Amino acid sequence: MSSAYKIVLVRHGESEWNLENRFCGWHDADLSTKGVQEAHQAGKSLKEAGFSFDVAYTSVLKRAIKTLFFIQEELDLHWIPVLKTWRLNERMYGGLQGLNKSETAAKHGEEQVKTWRRAYDIPPPLMDANDPELPEKDPKYADYDKAVLPRTECLKDTVERFLPFWHDSVVPQIKNGKRVLIAAHGNSIRALVKYLDNVPDNKIVELNIPTGIPLVYELDADLKPVKHYYLADEATVNAAVNAVANQGKAK
Amino acid sequence: MSSAYKIVLVRHGESEWNLENRFCGWHDADLSTKGVQEAHQAGKSLKEAGFSFDVAYTSVLKRAIKTLFFIQEELDLHWIPVLKTWRLNERMYGGLQGLNKSETAAKHGEEQVKTWRRAYDIPPPLMDANDPELPEKDPKYADYDKAVLPRTECLKDTVERFLPFWHDSVVPQIKNGKRVLIAAHGNSIRALVKYLDNVPDNKIVELNIPTGIPLVYELDADLKPVKHYYLADEATVNAAVNAVANQGKAK
Repeated sequence: MSSAYKIVLVRHGESEWNLENRFCGWHDADLSTKGVQEAHQAGKSLKEAGFSFDVAYTSVLKRAIKTLFFIQEELDLHWIPVLKTWRLNERMYGGLQGLNKSETAAKHGEEQVKTWRRAYDIPPPLMDANDPELPEKDPKYADYDKAVLPRTECLKDTVERFLPFWHDSVVPQIKNGKRVLIAAHGNSIRALVKYLDNVPDNKIVELNIPTGIPLVYELDADLKPVKHYYLADEATVNAAVNAVANQGKAK
Repeated sequence: MSSAYKIVLVRHGESEWNLENRFCGWHDADLSTKGVQEAHQAGKSLKEAGFSFDVAYTSVLKRAIKTLFFIQEELDLHWIPVLKTWRLNERMYGGLQGLNKSETAAKHGEEQVKTWRRAYDIPPPLMDANDPELPEKDPKYADYDKAVLPRTECLKDTVERFLPFWHDSVVPQIKNGKRVLIAAHGNSIRALVKYLDNVPDNKIVELNIPTGIPLVYELDADLKPVKHYYLADEATVNAAVNAVANQGKAK
């Protein structure tokens, strides 16, 4: 099959909460200094490889929005339309958000934590109704019916809330020939990769997306993947994947 | 009359071409170091005064887009929708773009330059058909019929191309209760001020908008101005207005 379209996915650079190894989810952590560097490097790699874009998508979380902005800066593409949507947010970690690895294990037990991490369709406990970070209390989501806003998510939930946006907003742009850039999160990118490559449930949870390395998908006329590759040499990609895998739960 | 709505207008911070005193217009000059500082200060002033926003508008020129981004950063409002449009661009200076004060005087004569600067409805010469910065050659404007893209503008032209956007896109948001922030340029802000305050043609060309100081308009239920004020003390505003006035043509 021949490649008709290219899209580029970038997972945001390291955040301040990655550093602390806390479940970040919808918490609006900022990029760390290293994360800012990773974002600029992603832009430089795209520029060197001759990429340009007509439209960009990102989440409503600043670690992804800023990653996109620094990429735009490197590509001199400040002017392209940017659509921000909670449907590209990181997976919502419910009652685990804000906890670090040892706090989570102490509260829920090692076995339970492993289950939540490895299962495709078992969500962590609901976020507490009094949690100040409850989405329905956050102005970012004020335009949404609170019934649609999650209080926890398994990866399956993330896939299901992301796909309507993909089909309604992104696909028509790709089919119109627009070159699309998506700056998002580990699990919202997993959601798209699962859909595009038809990855089985038990395999997608093992797929680690490195931070700040552009992931190019070449698609045929029916938007089926022809091939995909990272814009970095293999050693760099492997090191970044291992860093993410070892980091474990901080996302 | 009582105030029903507030909107905030910010002219971008100093650009690299302001420094060189060149007609900038649609040339996509970056912010100077001072311009970046001005943008952050604008955000800090808005934060101190308790402002927040639901939606923002800017041009497709990076000096305005980046000014907006730095304001968003200070207000922790990365996530709000940002709509970028050429209808908020600076006035298009046609054949004068890129020339500095003395080059312009040498080429066209002092009297002619004064006329272009002071007249509301006399445009400078057309941009040369071979100019590499012709809008119809720029990917920013690729989605537009070239018949709609100016090759020069008097202030009257800028007003006329800005107002449809104001009425179609901004007004409905204000009437829906959305708090609107506009980061734009000396002449696109003049265009809005002329419309809101019904400023006569010969007065609007004398109105100098300082860079990087938030200008608040309070509007009644019919969107007529109740009052307006800058978020800075009078001495700061006057100094900034004088700096812009003395700088003369660089915009």
